[in-house]
Amino acid sequence: MTDTSLLSSDSERHARPLKFAHNLLMEEPLDLERGGCLTQVNVTYETYGRLNADRSNAVLLCHALSGDSHVAAHTSDDDPGWWDIAVGPGKAIDTDRYFVICPNVLGGCRGTTGPNSFNPKTGKPYGADFPVITVGDIVEVQRRLVDHLGIDRLLAVVGGSLGGHMALTWATRHSDRLLGVAPVATSACLTSQALAFDVVGRNAILRDPNYLEGQYYESGHGPLVGLAIARMLGHITYLSREGMTEKFDAERFRPREVLSAFETKFSVGSYLAHQGDRFGERFDANSYMTLSMAMDLFDLGITPEKLAEAVSRSDCRWLLFSFTSDWLFPPFQSQQIVDALIAADKPVSYCNIKSRCGHDAFLLDDDLPTYGELLRAFLANLSGTPISPTSDNPGAGAEPDRTVHSPTSIFHGRHRLDYDTIVDLIPLGASVLDLGCGTGSLLARLAARGHERLMGIEWDEQSIVRGLQRGLDVVQADLNQGLAAFGDDQFDIVVLSQTLQTVTDVERVVDEMLRVGSRGIVSFPNLAHRDHRHRLSTEGRAPGIDAAAGYKWYNTPNVRFLSLYDFEDFCRDKGITIHQIVALDTAADRRVEDDPNLAANVAIAVVSK
Amino acid sequence: MTDTSLLSSDSERHARPLKFAHNLLMEEPLDLERGGCLTQVNVTYETYGRLNADRSNAVLLCHALSGDSHVAAHTSDDDPGWWDIAVGPGKAIDTDRYFVICPNVLGGCRGTTGPNSFNPKTGKPYGADFPVITVGDIVEVQRRLVDHLGIDRLLAVVGGSLGGHMALTWATRHSDRLLGVAPVATSACLTSQALAFDVVGRNAILRDPNYLEGQYYESGHGPLVGLAIARMLGHITYLSREGMTEKFDAERFRPREVLSAFETKFSVGSYLAHQGDRFGERFDANSYMTLSMAMDLFDLGITPEKLAEAVSRSDCRWLLFSFTSDWLFPPFQSQQIVDALIAADKPVSYCNIKSRCGHDAFLLDDDLPTYGELLRAFLANLSGTPISPTSDNPGAGAEPDRTVHSPTSIFHGRHRLDYDTIVDLIPLGASVLDLGCGTGSLLARLAARGHERLMGIEWDEQSIVRGLQRGLDVVQADLNQGLAAFGDDQFDIVVLSQTLQTVTDVERVVDEMLRVGSRGIVSFPNLAHRDHRHRLSTEGRAPGIDAAAGYKWYNTPNVRFLSLYDFEDFCRDKGITIHQIVALDTAADRRVEDDPNLAANVAIAVVSK
Repeated sequence: MTDTSLLSSDSERHARPLKFAHNLLMEEPLDLERGGCLTQVNVTYETYGRLNADRSNAVLLCHALSGDSHVAAHTSDDDPGWWDIAVGPGKAIDTDRYFVICPNVLGGCRGTTGPNSFNPKTGKPYGADFPVITVGDIVEVQRRLVDHLGIDRLLAVVGGSLGGHMALTWATRHSDRLLGVAPVATSACLTSQALAFDVVGRNAILRDPNYLEGQYYESGHGPLVGLAIARMLGHITYLSREGMTEKFDAERFRPREVLSAFETKFSVGSYLAHQGDRFGERFDANSYMTLSMAMDLFDLGITPEKLAEAVSRSDCRWLLFSFTSDWLFPPFQSQQIVDALIAADKPVSYCNIKSRCGHDAFLLDDDLPTYGELLRAFLANLSGTPISPTSDNPGAGAEPDRTVHSPTSIFHGRHRLDYDTIVDLIPLGASVLDLGCGTGSLLARLAARGHERLMGIEWDEQSIVRGLQRGLDVVQADLNQGLAAFGDDQFDIVVLSQTLQTVTDVERVVDEMLRVGSRGIVSFPNLAHRDHRHRLSTEGRAPGIDAAAGYKWYNTPNVRFLSLYDFEDFCRDKGITIHQIVALDTAADRRVEDDPNLAANVAIAVVSK
Repeated sequence: MTDTSLLSSDSERHARPLKFAHNLLMEEPLDLERGGCLTQVNVTYETYGRLNADRSNAVLLCHALSGDSHVAAHTSDDDPGWWDIAVGPGKAIDTDRYFVICPNVLGGCRGTTGPNSFNPKTGKPYGADFPVITVGDIVEVQRRLVDHLGIDRLLAVVGGSLGGHMALTWATRHSDRLLGVAPVATSACLTSQALAFDVVGRNAILRDPNYLEGQYYESGHGPLVGLAIARMLGHITYLSREGMTEKFDAERFRPREVLSAFETKFSVGSYLAHQGDRFGERFDANSYMTLSMAMDLFDLGITPEKLAEAVSRSDCRWLLFSFTSDWLFPPFQSQQIVDALIAADKPVSYCNIKSRCGHDAFLLDDDLPTYGELLRAFLANLSGTPISPTSDNPGAGAEPDRTVHSPTSIFHGRHRLDYDTIVDLIPLGASVLDLGCGTGSLLARLAARGHERLMGIEWDEQSIVRGLQRGLDVVQADLNQGLAAFGDDQFDIVVLSQTLQTVTDVERVVDEMLRVGSRGIVSFPNLAHRDHRHRLSTEGRAPGIDAAAGYKWYNTPNVRFLSLYDFEDFCRDKGITIHQIVALDTAADRRVEDDPNLAANVAIAVVSK
């Protein structure tokens, strides 16, 4: 049962000495948010890479509940760290470029002051006398460390899970101290379900007869059974159901042999017994109680109003990502934060990464090709050096570029008449939201033209990565679900380019674009073009609007078919004003002036409501 | 904290005397599947209603892990039962019509022999000496009870969760003893995730110092802390995440006062503390261990092959339903059983009921309007008296009938030329699968014509209820996901009536229908009808294929548009043989012979591959 494929990333790392750790003893008393005071605090931290001359390349990493300062190996023979796959020379968080700081958190048990530390007042471990701490207290200690290192402004703060709560706190409380923040697989507060699991875990520790009201350090024994129960429960919640099926179903009734006083009858049982037993060797039950309570008390905004108020205080750039199979910090919780940021008009990117790895995904390499590149691009953008700012050709290792917009585009060359036309229709300096922005070609061109407030909405994961590599802010969303997070008239222009015909809920999408944008620019293929009329009328067959792209009636991405007249009728019925229509014959590469509903194959309309 | 809205259905029912229970002492030894033997077994059971003269109206109810024989109140002043909402005079399981039997399960702690029973060999409670039992052993005891009651063939066996495992065992092991089975919110085996929760619960009991290796009955104390931890965990898994949010989020930080040694800091914490403390007052820890192990060992088929083999032994009619928010017995597990039954050509109905109530849903009244009517219709069908066998008008209390097929139908009256035509095209006695069967009008007419093997696939929940009320077998499925469960040539005819134009993945649906059916009958609106040509060609607007139903290009349920020629081209390209095409002009209420691609608005094709 020591097959590493069965082990979560931070397992099996017994409490080893931290050879490269620094310690900072802070003599200044720390007043705690929930009352009480720690007269002195030690912080154990590790650093990677070099702080540059203008001290602008520092990245603070915040670890999750059971992590520590050892985020990565320092040398080839060093112990592995908890995020080796993402932190190191040339890696996503590139220690050749950035100065990485990772402190053990307040309340932890790996160097930084926590319940197992000596209480200077008594000369004994704090135990249950360790006060209730909050994520705010943890972050305050981190802030003092950053001060001590002489860093006025961090390039970024990055953290997942409980570390994500810390990142959120940095961004909303110390916004002047960082350029960007990446809260990962996290939430504004736990779901009641996730909180309930924590409660059960703490109850198992609290009612373990060896807990001794938290003063077990001198008993030679601790609440190891309770801690193991809590840890088993934790492991279930870190994995996805699919992931557990893959790991355990084939050998369900043939568990490996594990020496344990816990049940080892099923393969998943022997795994949990092993994890539970091992955890007590490296972690302190009081720290578990303290940190899980800090997580449960975290409340950036359990109500939308409170969340909106919190994010309104931020003044940095945001990247969030979640994982589709994470049910402990489910994606909708990241989306709530993204929605609040959008409503507050903050620069934000977001991707809900398709994953089978559950909450643990951000620690595993399965989805690193996506989340690592998001982080790499985000840090590059914060440094002011996007990976490939304008090129339509991707950098090395990236995905090949798509057509500018949706796969239904009727254009397939480099020259895009409709696309040139849209750029021409956008006033200089206008703020622009591009619905279905693809890899961001249109927005990148606008950025090069000097537009400052630009944002894209896109569904495809790799296109979002590409957008970030171009220096853009792109949020993943399904247009059919609407744009509820956006405020009225939030953008000067909202673009819906070659996308209208692919959405099912046309009324909602158009309604929303004209609520959010002062003006909308819509382009669509014209069903009444003479070729299409001819095909139906004379040949008796369905028009092949995107036949050039190889599609037929039964497999086209298009699900809505309209003529220029239909669009005009629609606008009249819905009270939409058409300010301008540009009709194009893209085959002849020209604008059409006469009888556009017959001669144009594409129409571009500037509209408002 | 005794607000009943916060309490799960079976909570707060302390161990009260079972006034109406019968006891049957079985002197015949019971050899157990995993070895060992119980020399005698007592069964505690309750009955409701009257056994009819030919003993054909008996319904066996199987309770879940913490249930008992008291399924419903017997009199107005009797204690409430665990399924009062569904069992009683006039209710879904109507005790005016059916003789209901509910035994406490073997291994339980409410009368039937279990770990807290006296071991005749020692004169003391079995405790940990109680042998490992299986669901098969539980069912064997139930079978002996049914023998004792003189019932050769049960009308039905109904059970949810662990009770569903019993129902599955009845249907696959004693198929000659029942006409129908309704396994509810259950599975062929637990997911590894669900199993893991059971393991943690048992570990909490096993490692409770008061467990005393299971011999705690004389200690005056039991492993109440461990049992409470297990129960808290159970409660989390019975509820959905959404349900917990609704119950606990608003008052998260303001818990009600509960006297407990467990943590009561959060509203969900005080709820769990209360539930955990109360459970020990009515349930025995050894029974919890015994029954959860029986559930974990249950394996009707962890592999598809084993499951197929198991259901092939069944010879009864099936109804399964699951609940969308049930994550402990997730819907895909019911679907696996349904798929196996389909593959084995067994009569089965299935509905995945849209619910916010999680696994508990089958015990709550939120979704009773759907699942209660499914059960009522299923039992009526087993009795040979469908609620409304042929009528297009529903019975009292049911939903109003829809149009015969999809909402995109171009017909809205009672007279349906296309529908008459399809019936005429189906050979007498043919087996028929109707894809998108709506409320089952076509199938009901075929049933009246004497067709025996009929089945419908439908997406809409209420239409499925209506189908069952007509005596039909209807399975909920999304046609775009294909028909993978069906075998090649499983039906003589597969019908796809006015549905082709609403599916996105046309190729897959057509491929599948022609694999599953020896022949397919497809009806669709003809885009090249002269009215549609005229509208595009002369008016320059999109044809309004279902304009008569009030739809426009931007909100029609249709997403695919084809002419009769397009369909012919498609068939030629895909190697599909067209045996016959009937072209209709439904406005003129006649068949079209000349130039059908111009004159017909609907085409019906008989095809094969």
